[in-house]
Amino acid sequence: MKLATLRTAEGTRAVRVEGDRYAELGAPHVGAWLSQEDWRARAEAITPERPLAGADLAPVVPRPGKILCVGLNYRTHILEMGRELPRHPTLFAKFPEALVGPADPIALPPESEAVDWEAELAVVLGATVRRASEAEAAAAIAGFSVLNDITARDWQYRSPEWLQGKTFEGTTPFGPYLVTPDELPGGTRPALDLSCSVDGEQVQKAGTDDLVFDPVELVRYASTIVTLRPGDVIATGTPGGVGHARKPPRYLSDGVRVVTEISGLGRLENVARDERA
Amino acid sequence: MKLATLRTAEGTRAVRVEGDRYAELGAPHVGAWLSQEDWRARAEAITPERPLAGADLAPVVPRPGKILCVGLNYRTHILEMGRELPRHPTLFAKFPEALVGPADPIALPPESEAVDWEAELAVVLGATVRRASEAEAAAAIAGFSVLNDITARDWQYRSPEWLQGKTFEGTTPFGPYLVTPDELPGGTRPALDLSCSVDGEQVQKAGTDDLVFDPVELVRYASTIVTLRPGDVIATGTPGGVGHARKPPRYLSDGVRVVTEISGLGRLENVARDERA
Repeated sequence: MKLATLRTAEGTRAVRVEGDRYAELGAPHVGAWLSQEDWRARAEAITPERPLAGADLAPVVPRPGKILCVGLNYRTHILEMGRELPRHPTLFAKFPEALVGPADPIALPPESEAVDWEAELAVVLGATVRRASEAEAAAAIAGFSVLNDITARDWQYRSPEWLQGKTFEGTTPFGPYLVTPDELPGGTRPALDLSCSVDGEQVQKAGTDDLVFDPVELVRYASTIVTLRPGDVIATGTPGGVGHARKPPRYLSDGVRVVTEISGLGRLENVARDERA
Repeated sequence: MKLATLRTAEGTRAVRVEGDRYAELGAPHVGAWLSQEDWRARAEAITPERPLAGADLAPVVPRPGKILCVGLNYRTHILEMGRELPRHPTLFAKFPEALVGPADPIALPPESEAVDWEAELAVVLGATVRRASEAEAAAAIAGFSVLNDITARDWQYRSPEWLQGKTFEGTTPFGPYLVTPDELPGGTRPALDLSCSVDGEQVQKAGTDDLVFDPVELVRYASTIVTLRPGDVIATGTPGGVGHARKPPRYLSDGVRVVTEISGLGRLENVARDERA
Protein backbone atom coordinates (compact mmCIF):
# COMPACT_ATOMS: atom_id res chain seq x y z
CA MET A 1 0.00 0.00 0.00
CA LYS A 2 1.11 3.53 -0.89
CA LEU A 3 0.11 6.69 1.01
CA ALA A 4 0.84 10.30 0.11
CA THR A 5 -0.02 13.85 1.14
CA LEU A 6 -1.72 15.83 -1.62
CA ARG A 7 -1.92 19.60 -1.86
CA THR A 8 -5.40 20.89 -2.74
CA ALA A 9 -6.92 24.37 -2.88
CA GLU A 10 -8.41 23.65 0.57
CA GLY A 11 -5.17 22.44 2.16
CA THR A 12 -3.37 19.12 2.24
CA ARG A 13 -5.06 15.70 2.26
CA ALA A 14 -3.81 12.23 3.17
CA VAL A 15 -4.46 9.90 0.23
CA ARG A 16 -4.03 6.27 -0.72
CA VAL A 17 -2.41 5.74 -4.13
CA GLU A 18 -2.76 2.68 -6.34
CA GLY A 19 -1.24 2.75 -9.82
CA ASP A 20 -2.32 6.06 -11.38
CA ARG A 21 -5.31 6.56 -9.06
CA TYR A 22 -5.80 8.00 -5.61
CA ALA A 23 -8.50 8.33 -2.95
CA GLU A 24 -8.73 10.79 -0.06
CA LEU A 25 -8.55 9.10 3.33
CA GLY A 26 -10.15 11.75 5.55
CA ALA A 27 -7.11 13.20 7.31
CA PRO A 28 -5.13 16.37 6.54
CA HIS A 29 -1.83 14.53 5.96
CA VAL A 30 -0.16 11.15 6.30
CA GLY A 31 1.14 12.00 9.78
CA ALA A 32 -2.40 12.50 11.07
CA TRP A 33 -3.64 9.37 9.28
CA LEU A 34 -0.95 7.22 10.95
CA SER A 35 -2.05 8.47 14.37
CA GLN A 36 -5.11 6.23 14.20
CA GLU A 37 -4.44 2.79 15.60
CA ASP A 38 -6.27 1.01 12.74
CA TRP A 39 -4.79 3.12 9.91
CA ARG A 40 -3.73 0.12 7.83
CA ALA A 41 -7.11 -1.63 7.77
CA ARG A 42 -9.00 1.62 7.26
CA ALA A 43 -6.82 2.63 4.30
CA GLU A 44 -7.09 -0.83 2.75
CA ALA A 45 -10.88 -0.51 2.73
CA ILE A 46 -10.71 2.59 0.52
CA THR A 47 -10.37 2.15 -3.26
CA PRO A 48 -8.41 4.77 -5.23
CA GLU A 49 -10.54 5.96 -8.16
CA ARG A 50 -9.50 9.53 -8.96
CA PRO A 51 -6.71 10.11 -11.51
CA LEU A 52 -3.41 11.03 -9.89
CA ALA A 53 -1.98 12.75 -13.01
CA GLY A 54 -1.00 16.33 -12.29
CA ALA A 55 -1.30 15.91 -8.52
CA ASP A 56 0.76 18.28 -6.38
CA LEU A 57 2.46 16.27 -3.65
CA ALA A 58 3.57 17.72 -0.32
CA PRO A 59 6.33 16.12 1.80
CA VAL A 60 4.81 12.70 2.56
CA VAL A 61 4.68 13.68 6.25
CA PRO A 62 4.67 17.49 6.11
CA ARG A 63 5.37 18.22 9.80
CA PRO A 64 6.87 15.22 11.59
CA GLY A 65 7.05 15.55 15.37
CA LYS A 66 10.68 14.45 15.13
CA ILE A 67 13.13 13.97 12.29
CA LEU A 68 16.14 11.90 13.31
CA CYS A 69 19.01 11.63 10.86
CA VAL A 70 21.84 9.09 10.87
CA GLY A 71 25.48 9.79 10.03
CA LEU A 72 27.83 7.39 8.23
CA ASN A 73 25.80 4.20 7.89
CA TYR A 74 26.77 2.50 4.59
CA ARG A 75 29.16 -0.38 5.27
CA THR A 76 30.96 -0.39 1.90
CA HIS A 77 31.52 3.34 2.00
CA ILE A 78 32.85 3.31 5.58
CA LEU A 79 35.26 0.46 4.83
CA GLU A 80 36.49 2.01 1.56
CA MET A 81 37.25 5.20 3.51
CA GLY A 82 39.52 3.08 5.74
CA ARG A 83 37.36 3.63 8.81
CA GLU A 84 36.11 1.13 11.32
CA LEU A 85 32.42 0.28 11.46
CA PRO A 86 30.78 2.34 14.23
CA ARG A 87 29.49 0.63 17.37
CA HIS A 88 26.58 3.06 17.77
CA PRO A 89 24.57 5.10 15.27
CA THR A 90 25.48 8.77 14.90
CA LEU A 91 22.21 10.68 15.36
CA PHE A 92 21.37 14.29 14.65
CA ALA A 93 18.15 16.21 14.04
CA LYS A 94 16.50 18.17 11.27
CA PHE A 95 13.57 20.53 11.82
CA PRO A 96 10.31 20.07 9.84
CA GLU A 97 10.75 23.49 8.17
CA ALA A 98 13.54 21.94 6.10
CA LEU A 99 11.14 19.64 4.22
CA VAL A 100 9.82 20.18 0.68
CA GLY A 101 7.70 18.02 -1.60
CA PRO A 102 8.97 15.52 -4.17
CA ALA A 103 8.76 17.98 -7.09
CA ASP A 104 9.37 21.26 -5.24
CA PRO A 105 12.42 23.49 -5.73
CA ILE A 106 15.36 22.95 -3.38
CA ALA A 107 16.11 26.35 -1.79
CA LEU A 108 19.72 27.45 -2.22
CA PRO A 109 20.28 29.91 0.64
CA PRO A 110 22.50 32.84 -0.37
CA GLU A 111 24.39 32.36 2.92
CA SER A 112 25.91 29.05 1.73
CA GLU A 113 28.48 28.39 -1.00
CA ALA A 114 28.45 24.62 -0.63
CA VAL A 115 25.03 22.95 -0.88
CA ASP A 116 25.41 19.20 -1.40
CA TRP A 117 23.22 16.10 -1.91
CA GLU A 118 22.70 13.01 0.29
CA ALA A 119 20.21 10.44 -1.03
CA GLU A 120 18.64 8.47 1.82
CA LEU A 121 16.09 5.83 2.70
CA ALA A 122 13.58 7.29 5.18
CA VAL A 123 11.66 5.26 7.77
CA VAL A 124 8.23 6.54 8.85
CA LEU A 125 6.80 5.47 12.21
CA GLY A 126 3.24 4.16 12.42
CA ALA A 127 2.94 3.49 16.14
CA THR A 128 4.05 4.83 19.52
CA VAL A 129 7.05 3.00 20.99
CA ARG A 130 9.59 3.45 23.79
CA ARG A 131 12.34 0.97 24.60
CA ALA A 132 11.01 -1.24 21.83
CA SER A 133 12.14 -4.84 21.43
CA GLU A 134 13.29 -5.83 17.95
CA ALA A 135 9.82 -7.20 17.18
CA GLU A 136 8.09 -4.07 18.50
CA ALA A 137 10.45 -1.87 16.48
CA ALA A 138 9.67 -3.78 13.27
CA ALA A 139 5.93 -3.56 13.95
CA ALA A 140 6.18 0.20 14.55
CA ILE A 141 7.48 0.89 11.03
CA ALA A 142 4.60 2.21 8.90
CA GLY A 143 6.71 2.24 5.78
CA PHE A 144 9.51 3.79 3.78
CA SER A 145 10.06 6.82 1.62
CA VAL A 146 12.83 8.72 -0.19
CA LEU A 147 14.59 11.73 1.34
CA ASN A 148 17.50 13.84 0.17
CA ASP A 149 19.32 15.23 3.21
CA ILE A 150 20.54 18.33 1.33
CA THR A 151 23.41 19.80 3.35
CA ALA A 152 25.14 23.18 3.46
CA ARG A 153 28.67 21.82 3.99
CA ASP A 154 30.18 25.18 4.96
CA TRP A 155 27.59 25.56 7.74
CA GLN A 156 27.77 21.87 8.73
CA TYR A 157 31.47 22.26 9.53
CA ARG A 158 31.32 25.69 11.19
CA SER A 159 31.05 23.97 14.56
CA PRO A 160 31.43 20.43 15.94
CA GLU A 161 27.67 19.88 15.62
CA TRP A 162 26.20 19.42 12.12
CA LEU A 163 22.64 20.69 12.77
CA GLN A 164 23.07 24.17 11.31
CA GLY A 165 24.15 22.77 7.93
CA LYS A 166 21.36 20.22 7.92
CA THR A 167 18.22 22.21 8.54
CA PHE A 168 18.12 25.21 6.18
CA GLU A 169 14.51 25.94 5.37
CA GLY A 170 13.01 24.39 2.23
CA THR A 171 16.00 22.25 1.30
CA THR A 172 15.04 18.63 1.99
CA PRO A 173 12.81 16.78 -0.51
CA PHE A 174 10.79 13.97 1.08
CA GLY A 175 8.36 11.62 -0.66
CA PRO A 176 6.73 10.90 -2.99
CA TYR A 177 4.97 8.07 -1.13
CA LEU A 178 5.04 6.07 2.03
CA VAL A 179 5.25 2.43 0.88
CA THR A 180 4.37 -0.24 3.43
CA PRO A 181 6.95 -2.97 4.15
CA ASP A 182 4.80 -5.80 2.74
CA GLU A 183 5.31 -4.37 -0.76
CA LEU A 184 9.11 -4.39 -0.52
CA PRO A 185 11.77 -7.13 -0.86
CA GLY A 186 13.18 -7.52 2.64
CA GLY A 187 10.10 -6.00 4.31
CA THR A 188 11.11 -3.89 7.31
CA ARG A 189 14.79 -4.39 6.33
CA PRO A 190 14.26 -3.55 2.67
CA ALA A 191 16.82 -4.49 -0.01
CA LEU A 192 16.36 -1.66 -2.52
CA ASP A 193 18.49 0.21 -5.05
CA LEU A 194 19.14 3.80 -4.03
CA SER A 195 20.57 6.39 -6.40
CA CYS A 196 21.06 10.09 -6.88
CA SER A 197 21.73 11.88 -10.14
CA VAL A 198 22.68 15.50 -10.67
CA ASP A 199 21.86 17.02 -14.06
CA GLY A 200 21.56 13.52 -15.47
CA GLU A 201 24.86 12.16 -14.10
CA GLN A 202 24.54 9.37 -11.58
CA VAL A 203 26.53 10.43 -8.50
CA GLN A 204 25.35 7.99 -5.81
CA LYS A 205 24.35 4.34 -6.06
CA ALA A 206 24.00 1.76 -3.30
CA GLY A 207 21.84 -1.03 -1.96
CA THR A 208 19.84 -0.26 1.18
CA ASP A 209 20.82 -3.74 2.44
CA ASP A 210 24.32 -2.29 2.96
CA LEU A 211 23.23 -0.25 6.02
CA VAL A 212 25.28 -0.88 9.17
CA PHE A 213 22.24 -0.06 11.35
CA ASP A 214 19.11 -1.22 9.53
CA PRO A 215 15.68 0.40 9.95
CA VAL A 216 14.54 -2.00 12.67
CA GLU A 217 17.73 -1.48 14.68
CA LEU A 218 17.49 2.31 14.27
CA VAL A 219 13.90 2.36 15.55
CA ARG A 220 14.86 0.13 18.48
CA TYR A 221 17.93 2.24 19.33
CA ALA A 222 16.22 5.64 19.03
CA SER A 223 13.27 4.41 21.10
CA THR A 224 15.66 3.74 23.99
CA ILE A 225 16.21 7.49 24.19
CA VAL A 226 12.80 8.94 23.47
CA THR A 227 9.24 7.89 22.62
CA LEU A 228 8.77 7.57 18.87
CA ARG A 229 5.32 8.46 17.57
CA PRO A 230 3.29 8.03 14.37
CA GLY A 231 4.68 10.29 11.64
CA ASP A 232 8.15 10.55 13.18
CA VAL A 233 10.89 10.05 10.59
CA ILE A 234 14.34 8.47 10.64
CA ALA A 235 16.59 9.29 7.66
CA THR A 236 19.00 6.36 7.58
CA GLY A 237 22.16 7.96 6.17
CA THR A 238 23.77 8.29 2.75
CA PRO A 239 26.31 6.21 0.82
CA GLY A 240 29.45 7.51 -0.93
CA GLY A 241 29.30 9.91 -3.85
CA VAL A 242 28.48 13.25 -2.24
CA GLY A 243 29.77 16.40 -3.95
CA HIS A 244 31.91 17.50 -1.00
CA ALA A 245 34.12 14.38 -1.32
CA ARG A 246 34.91 15.02 -5.00
CA LYS A 247 38.15 16.58 -6.14
CA PRO A 248 37.42 19.33 -6.88
CA PRO A 249 34.21 19.42 -4.79
CA ARG A 250 30.93 19.87 -6.63
CA TYR A 251 27.93 21.70 -5.20
CA LEU A 252 24.43 22.59 -6.35
CA SER A 253 23.79 25.82 -8.21
CA ASP A 254 20.70 27.54 -9.57
CA GLY A 255 18.86 25.39 -12.12
CA VAL A 256 20.61 22.09 -11.37
CA ARG A 257 18.26 19.10 -11.39
CA VAL A 258 18.55 16.52 -8.60
CA VAL A 259 16.86 13.13 -9.01
CA THR A 260 16.77 10.89 -5.94
CA GLU A 261 15.35 7.43 -6.50
CA ILE A 262 14.82 4.20 -4.58
CA SER A 263 13.47 1.10 -6.35
CA GLY A 264 9.94 0.35 -5.19
CA LEU A 265 9.60 3.71 -3.44
CA GLY A 266 9.64 6.15 -6.36
CA ARG A 267 11.64 9.24 -7.17
CA LEU A 268 12.14 12.83 -6.11
CA GLU A 269 12.80 15.30 -8.93
CA ASN A 270 13.86 18.70 -7.65
CA VAL A 271 15.49 21.71 -9.22
CA ALA A 272 17.87 23.77 -7.08
CA ARG A 273 16.83 27.44 -6.97
CA ASP A 274 18.87 30.33 -5.65
CA GLU A 275 16.57 32.02 -3.14
CA ARG A 276 17.61 35.43 -4.52
CA ALA A 277 16.17 34.48 -7.94
CA MET B 1 5.17 40.27 33.22
CA LYS B 2 5.40 36.56 34.10
CA LEU B 3 3.63 33.75 32.23
CA ALA B 4 3.47 30.06 33.12
CA THR B 5 1.76 26.84 32.10
CA LEU B 6 -0.34 25.34 34.88
CA ARG B 7 -1.46 21.72 35.13
CA THR B 8 -5.13 21.33 36.07
CA ALA B 9 -7.45 18.34 36.23
CA GLU B 10 -8.76 19.39 32.80
CA GLY B 11 -5.35 19.76 31.15
CA THR B 12 -2.79 22.55 31.04
CA ARG B 13 -3.60 26.28 31.04
CA ALA B 14 -1.55 29.34 30.11
CA VAL B 15 -1.58 31.75 33.06
CA ARG B 16 -0.26 35.15 34.00
CA VAL B 17 1.48 35.28 37.39
CA GLU B 18 1.92 38.33 39.61
CA GLY B 19 3.41 37.88 43.05
CA ASP B 20 1.56 34.97 44.64
CA ARG B 21 -1.48 35.21 42.34
CA TYR B 22 -2.35 33.91 38.89
CA ALA B 23 -5.07 34.26 36.27
CA GLU B 24 -5.93 31.93 33.40
CA LEU B 25 -5.38 33.53 30.01
CA GLY B 26 -7.60 31.36 27.81
CA ALA B 27 -5.02 29.19 26.01
CA PRO B 28 -3.89 25.65 26.78
CA HIS B 29 -0.23 26.62 27.30
CA VAL B 30 2.23 29.49 26.96
CA GLY B 31 3.24 28.36 23.44
CA ALA B 32 -0.34 28.74 22.19
CA TRP B 33 -0.74 32.07 23.99
CA LEU B 34 2.37 33.51 22.31
CA SER B 35 0.96 32.58 18.88
CA GLN B 36 -1.45 35.49 19.09
CA GLU B 37 0.04 38.69 17.69
CA ASP B 38 -1.27 40.84 20.56
CA TRP B 39 -0.35 38.42 23.37
CA ARG B 40 1.46 41.07 25.44
CA ALA B 41 -1.39 43.59 25.52
CA ARG B 42 -4.01 40.90 26.07
CA ALA B 43 -2.12 39.39 28.99
CA GLU B 44 -1.51 42.80 30.54
CA ALA B 45 -5.27 43.41 30.59
CA ILE B 46 -5.85 40.39 32.83
CA THR B 47 -5.37 40.72 36.60
CA PRO B 48 -4.08 37.70 38.54
CA GLU B 49 -6.42 37.07 41.50
CA ARG B 50 -6.27 33.36 42.30
CA PRO B 51 -3.69 32.12 44.82
CA LEU B 52 -0.73 30.39 43.17
CA ALA B 53 0.27 28.38 46.26
CA GLY B 54 0.36 24.66 45.54
CA ALA B 55 0.11 25.15 41.78
CA ASP B 56 1.51 22.34 39.63
CA LEU B 57 3.63 23.88 36.87
CA ALA B 58 4.32 22.21 33.51
CA PRO B 59 7.35 23.08 31.37
CA VAL B 60 6.71 26.77 30.62
CA VAL B 61 6.30 25.85 26.93
CA PRO B 62 5.36 22.16 27.09
CA ARG B 63 5.83 21.28 23.39
CA PRO B 64 7.98 23.84 21.58
CA GLY B 65 8.04 23.47 17.80
CA LYS B 66 11.83 23.65 17.98
CA ILE B 67 14.36 23.52 20.80
CA LEU B 68 17.78 24.78 19.75
CA CYS B 69 20.66 24.36 22.17
CA VAL B 70 24.01 26.12 22.12
CA GLY B 71 27.38 24.54 22.91
CA LEU B 72 30.27 26.28 24.71
CA ASN B 73 29.10 29.87 25.06
CA TYR B 74 30.46 31.28 28.34
CA ARG B 75 33.49 33.49 27.64
CA THR B 76 35.26 33.05 30.99
CA HIS B 77 34.90 29.29 30.89
CA ILE B 78 36.17 29.00 27.29
CA LEU B 79 39.19 31.17 28.04
CA GLU B 80 40.03 29.36 31.29
CA MET B 81 39.98 26.09 29.32
CA GLY B 82 42.67 27.62 27.07
CA ARG B 83 40.41 27.61 24.02
CA GLU B 84 39.79 30.36 21.52
CA LEU B 85 36.43 32.08 21.41
CA PRO B 86 34.31 30.49 18.65
CA ARG B 87 33.42 32.47 15.53
CA HIS B 88 30.01 30.82 15.17
CA PRO B 89 27.60 29.32 17.68
CA THR B 90 27.58 25.53 18.04
CA LEU B 91 23.94 24.50 17.63
CA PHE B 92 22.25 21.19 18.35
CA ALA B 93 18.67 20.12 19.00
CA LYS B 94 16.61 18.62 21.79
CA PHE B 95 13.18 17.04 21.28
CA PRO B 96 10.17 18.28 23.30
CA GLU B 97 9.76 14.85 24.95
CA ALA B 98 12.88 15.68 26.99
CA LEU B 99 11.14 18.50 28.89
CA VAL B 100 9.76 18.29 32.44
CA GLY B 101 8.25 20.88 34.74
CA PRO B 102 10.12 23.01 37.30
CA ALA B 103 9.35 20.67 40.23
CA ASP B 104 9.12 17.34 38.37
CA PRO B 105 11.54 14.44 38.83
CA ILE B 106 14.51 14.25 36.45
CA ALA B 107 14.37 10.77 34.86
CA LEU B 108 17.62 8.82 35.25
CA PRO B 109 17.53 6.30 32.40
CA PRO B 110 18.98 2.92 33.38
CA GLU B 111 20.90 2.93 30.07
CA SER B 112 23.19 5.76 31.24
CA GLU B 113 25.88 5.76 33.93
CA ALA B 114 26.75 9.44 33.55
CA VAL B 115 23.85 11.89 33.84
CA ASP B 116 25.15 15.43 34.35
CA TRP B 117 23.78 18.97 34.89
CA GLU B 118 24.01 22.09 32.69
CA ALA B 119 22.22 25.19 34.03
CA GLU B 120 21.15 27.48 31.19
CA LEU B 121 19.32 30.68 30.35
CA ALA B 122 16.51 29.87 27.88
CA VAL B 123 15.12 32.31 25.32
CA VAL B 124 11.45 31.91 24.28
CA LEU B 125 10.30 33.31 20.94
CA GLY B 126 7.17 35.45 20.77
CA ALA B 127 6.98 36.17 17.05
CA THR B 128 7.70 34.60 13.67
CA VAL B 129 11.05 35.67 12.15
CA ARG B 130 13.35 34.61 9.34
CA ARG B 131 16.62 36.33 8.48
CA ALA B 132 15.92 38.80 11.26
CA SER B 133 17.90 42.00 11.67
CA GLU B 134 19.30 42.69 15.12
CA ALA B 135 16.26 44.86 15.93
CA GLU B 136 13.81 42.25 14.63
CA ALA B 137 15.59 39.54 16.62
CA ALA B 138 15.34 41.58 19.83
CA ALA B 139 11.65 42.28 19.20
CA ALA B 140 10.98 38.57 18.59
CA ILE B 141 12.09 37.59 22.10
CA ALA B 142 9.00 37.00 24.27
CA GLY B 143 11.07 36.45 27.37
CA PHE B 144 13.43 34.27 29.34
CA SER B 145 13.25 31.19 31.51
CA VAL B 146 15.49 28.66 33.27
CA LEU B 147 16.44 25.31 31.73
CA ASN B 148 18.76 22.55 32.87
CA ASP B 149 20.14 20.76 29.81
CA ILE B 150 20.59 17.47 31.67
CA THR B 151 22.99 15.34 29.63
CA ALA B 152 23.85 11.63 29.49
CA ARG B 153 27.61 12.10 28.93
CA ASP B 154 28.23 8.46 27.95
CA TRP B 155 25.60 8.73 25.20
CA GLN B 156 26.67 12.26 24.21
CA TYR B 157 30.16 11.00 23.36
CA ARG B 158 29.16 7.70 21.71
CA SER B 159 29.26 9.45 18.35
CA PRO B 160 30.48 12.80 16.97
CA GLU B 161 26.97 14.24 17.32
CA TRP B 162 25.70 15.02 20.82
CA LEU B 163 21.94 14.68 20.22
CA GLN B 164 21.52 11.19 21.69
CA GLY B 165 22.95 12.29 25.05
CA LYS B 166 20.87 15.45 25.09
CA THR B 167 17.33 14.28 24.51
CA PHE B 168 16.53 11.40 26.86
CA GLU B 169 12.85 11.56 27.73
CA GLY B 170 11.82 13.43 30.87
CA THR B 171 15.25 14.77 31.76
CA THR B 172 15.19 18.53 31.07
CA PRO B 173 13.49 20.85 33.61
CA PHE B 174 12.21 24.07 32.03
CA GLY B 175 10.46 26.95 33.80
CA PRO B 176 9.08 28.04 36.15
CA TYR B 177 8.04 31.23 34.31
CA LEU B 178 8.56 33.15 31.15
CA VAL B 179 9.66 36.64 32.30
CA THR B 180 9.43 39.43 29.75
CA PRO B 181 12.60 41.45 28.99
CA ASP B 182 11.22 44.73 30.43
CA GLU B 183 11.39 43.19 33.93
CA LEU B 184 15.09 42.30 33.65
CA PRO B 185 18.34 44.28 33.94
CA GLY B 186 19.76 44.34 30.43
CA GLY B 187 16.40 43.63 28.80
CA THR B 188 16.82 41.31 25.78
CA ARG B 189 20.51 40.91 26.72
CA PRO B 190 19.85 40.22 30.39
CA ALA B 191 22.58 40.49 33.03
CA LEU B 192 21.48 37.86 35.55
CA ASP B 193 23.11 35.52 38.05
CA LEU B 194 22.85 31.88 37.02
CA SER B 195 23.64 29.03 39.39
CA CYS B 196 23.20 25.32 39.88
CA SER B 197 23.44 23.41 43.11
CA VAL B 198 23.50 19.65 43.64
CA ASP B 199 22.37 18.37 47.06
CA GLY B 200 22.95 21.85 48.44
CA GLU B 201 26.47 22.36 47.05
CA GLN B 202 26.80 25.16 44.51
CA VAL B 203 28.46 23.64 41.42
CA GLN B 204 27.87 26.30 38.76
CA LYS B 205 27.80 30.08 39.02
CA ALA B 206 28.06 32.68 36.24
CA GLY B 207 26.62 35.92 34.93
CA THR B 208 24.47 35.65 31.82
CA ASP B 209 26.24 38.78 30.53
CA ASP B 210 29.28 36.54 29.98
CA LEU B 211 27.70 34.83 26.94
CA VAL B 212 29.80 34.94 23.77
CA PHE B 213 26.64 34.89 21.63
CA ASP B 214 23.91 36.77 23.47
CA PRO B 215 20.17 36.04 23.10
CA VAL B 216 19.63 38.66 20.38
CA GLU B 217 22.56 37.38 18.34
CA LEU B 218 21.42 33.76 18.76
CA VAL B 219 17.91 34.59 17.53
CA ARG B 220 19.35 36.53 14.59
CA TYR B 221 21.80 33.73 13.71
CA ALA B 222 19.32 30.85 14.01
CA SER B 223 16.73 32.76 11.97
CA THR B 224 19.19 32.83 9.06
CA ILE B 225 18.80 29.07 8.85
CA VAL B 226 15.14 28.49 9.62
CA THR B 227 11.96 30.39 10.50
CA LEU B 228 11.63 30.81 14.26
CA ARG B 229 8.08 30.79 15.61
CA PRO B 230 6.25 31.68 18.82
CA GLY B 231 7.08 29.15 21.52
CA ASP B 232 10.36 28.05 19.95
CA VAL B 233 13.16 27.86 22.51
CA ILE B 234 16.89 28.55 22.43
CA ALA B 235 18.91 27.20 25.38
CA THR B 236 21.95 29.44 25.44
CA GLY B 237 24.65 27.12 26.80
CA THR B 238 26.17 26.41 30.21
CA PRO B 239 29.16 27.81 32.12
CA GLY B 240 31.90 25.76 33.81
CA GLY B 241 31.20 23.48 36.74
CA VAL B 242 29.58 20.44 35.15
CA GLY B 243 30.07 17.08 36.86
CA HIS B 244 31.85 15.50 33.89
CA ALA B 245 34.76 17.98 34.17
CA ARG B 246 35.41 17.17 37.86
CA LYS B 247 38.19 14.89 38.97
CA PRO B 248 36.82 12.40 39.70
CA PRO B 249 33.66 13.07 37.65
CA ARG B 250 30.39 13.43 39.51
CA TYR B 251 27.02 12.39 38.12
CA LEU B 252 23.42 12.38 39.31
CA SER B 253 22.02 9.41 41.19
CA ASP B 254 18.64 8.48 42.58
CA GLY B 255 17.40 11.00 45.14
CA VAL B 256 19.89 13.78 44.37
CA ARG B 257 18.34 17.26 44.41
CA VAL B 258 19.22 19.69 41.62
CA VAL B 259 18.42 23.39 42.06
CA THR B 260 18.84 25.59 38.98
CA GLU B 261 18.32 29.28 39.55
CA ILE B 262 18.58 32.55 37.64
CA SER B 263 18.04 35.88 39.41
CA GLY B 264 14.79 37.48 38.29
CA LEU B 265 13.61 34.30 36.55
CA GLY B 266 13.09 31.92 39.45
CA ARG B 267 14.28 28.44 40.26
CA LEU B 268 13.88 24.84 39.20
CA GLU B 269 13.95 22.28 42.02
CA ASN B 270 14.12 18.73 40.74
CA VAL B 271 14.99 15.41 42.29
CA ALA B 272 16.77 12.83 40.12
CA ARG B 273 14.87 9.53 40.03
CA ASP B 274 16.13 6.23 38.69
CA GLU B 275 13.46 5.14 36.22
CA ARG B 276 13.64 1.60 37.59
CA ALA B 277 12.52 2.86 41.02
